[in-house]
Amino acid sequence: MEILLTNDDGWGAKGLLTLLRVAERLGHVTVVAPDGARSGMSNAISVEKAMTLSLIEKTEAHDVYITNGTPSDCIKLAVNVIYTEKMPDLVISGINHGSNASVNVIYSGTMGACFVAAEQSIPAIGLSLCDHDLDADFSYLEPFIVPLVKQLLERGFPDGVCYNVNAPVGKIEGISFTRQSRAHWANEIATRYNADGTPYYWLQGEFVNHEPESHDTDEWAMAHGRISVCPCSIDMSFNARNL
Amino acid sequence: MEILLTNDDGWGAKGLLTLLRVAERLGHVTVVAPDGARSGMSNAISVEKAMTLSLIEKTEAHDVYITNGTPSDCIKLAVNVIYTEKMPDLVISGINHGSNASVNVIYSGTMGACFVAAEQSIPAIGLSLCDHDLDADFSYLEPFIVPLVKQLLERGFPDGVCYNVNAPVGKIEGISFTRQSRAHWANEIATRYNADGTPYYWLQGEFVNHEPESHDTDEWAMAHGRISVCPCSIDMSFNARNL
Repeated sequence: MEILLTNDDGWGAKGLLTLLRVAERLGHVTVVAPDGARSGMSNAISVEKAMTLSLIEKTEAHDVYITNGTPSDCIKLAVNVIYTEKMPDLVISGINHGSNASVNVIYSGTMGACFVAAEQSIPAIGLSLCDHDLDADFSYLEPFIVPLVKQLLERGFPDGVCYNVNAPVGKIEGISFTRQSRAHWANEIATRYNADGTPYYWLQGEFVNHEPESHDTDEWAMAHGRISVCPCSIDMSFNARNL
Repeated sequence: MEILLTNDDGWGAKGLLTLLRVAERLGHVTVVAPDGARSGMSNAISVEKAMTLSLIEKTEAHDVYITNGTPSDCIKLAVNVIYTEKMPDLVISGINHGSNASVNVIYSGTMGACFVAAEQSIPAIGLSLCDHDLDADFSYLEPFIVPLVKQLLERGFPDGVCYNVNAPVGKIEGISFTRQSRAHWANEIATRYNADGTPYYWLQGEFVNHEPESHDTDEWAMAHGRISVCPCSIDMSFNARNL
């Protein structure tokens, strides 16, 4: 199996290095990762700049490329420049340092890369751990990854659909297939002032879950120590499901 | 009615100036727009930089603010810094120079702003004309905007849902409620070379519609001279519609 990895924390992030070690048990791995952090980049693409792509490491088990682009650019570069003969069998994005569950999916660079893969009909899985720490502990999640990837490949990927997998911190009680919990971010701007009194603004936020009692959501699963596996579609149209 | 406008082509773009003139017929308008082009920014947010917000124009009919942020940042800044007492009644994003129909919705800064508004339970409409020209002709679309906005406000906005409105170039035959056509972009990378032979890459692409014969899609509507009105949900989970 040929596996393409990317992430939005950039090459060298602990989550990606963990994923690389695990993915090598499944097949040959090609990493195409941003050359630095690209958190909150959503599905952004570099329409107004030239992109770089540099092979920085090559072993029998893996090739590693870095680029100045976004996570979504990574997939486009890989598909069009590296995989000119045959598409990869699987894309895995992550492991992200921080949750991409609930409404976070629409802001996530990790998932943006998966959406590009889904557009190209390549099976894609986004992996995230609910811990923003640069030195987050992936040891509880790690043994679940290979069996979960195999299970999802057997289950199949409906057209335009990828999987958004989010794991809680600490001991894991099991795996749940979920839907996205309705939520919003509140109190999102912190105001600061220059020496001359001019205000400037930093993003912050408080997560507000609208349905904490719904047992079928990603947030509920994680609040109960379970890995959430949420199938996500690049078809955002509401009519498609409500005709 | 208090209306918040934004776009992804930046303040000064012809599409936004057209929309401003039209929106003033509906109520008081506040513009919070990027200070330059932010095409292809999707739902990206500025997690790693300080954002600016400057009031640059104030009349009885409208206030205009510009920011160094993304379209999605514009909504977050407006909601948290400007609308501290009461939310706007409506967000309109656009008029975008270029299509945001079909799979383009997941790359669109215009629609990213609408998704943030939908997250905050504010009615939001994204408007796009299928013409990338800086001097695109909005005159056919313009008379449809006020009646369409009134129709959508009467129809209502389901929770977490906004409208993705795309207009064809030229004479308009009518309006259709649609779903997102399945499509992908092919041949997406153009390779160029530095003087020393090092390659670099530009995004390009050929749009491939997977279902050109489906009469209920946004692409079909526009191919037949009609404005496509596609309700879009920030709930991307596939399970929500397939349990």
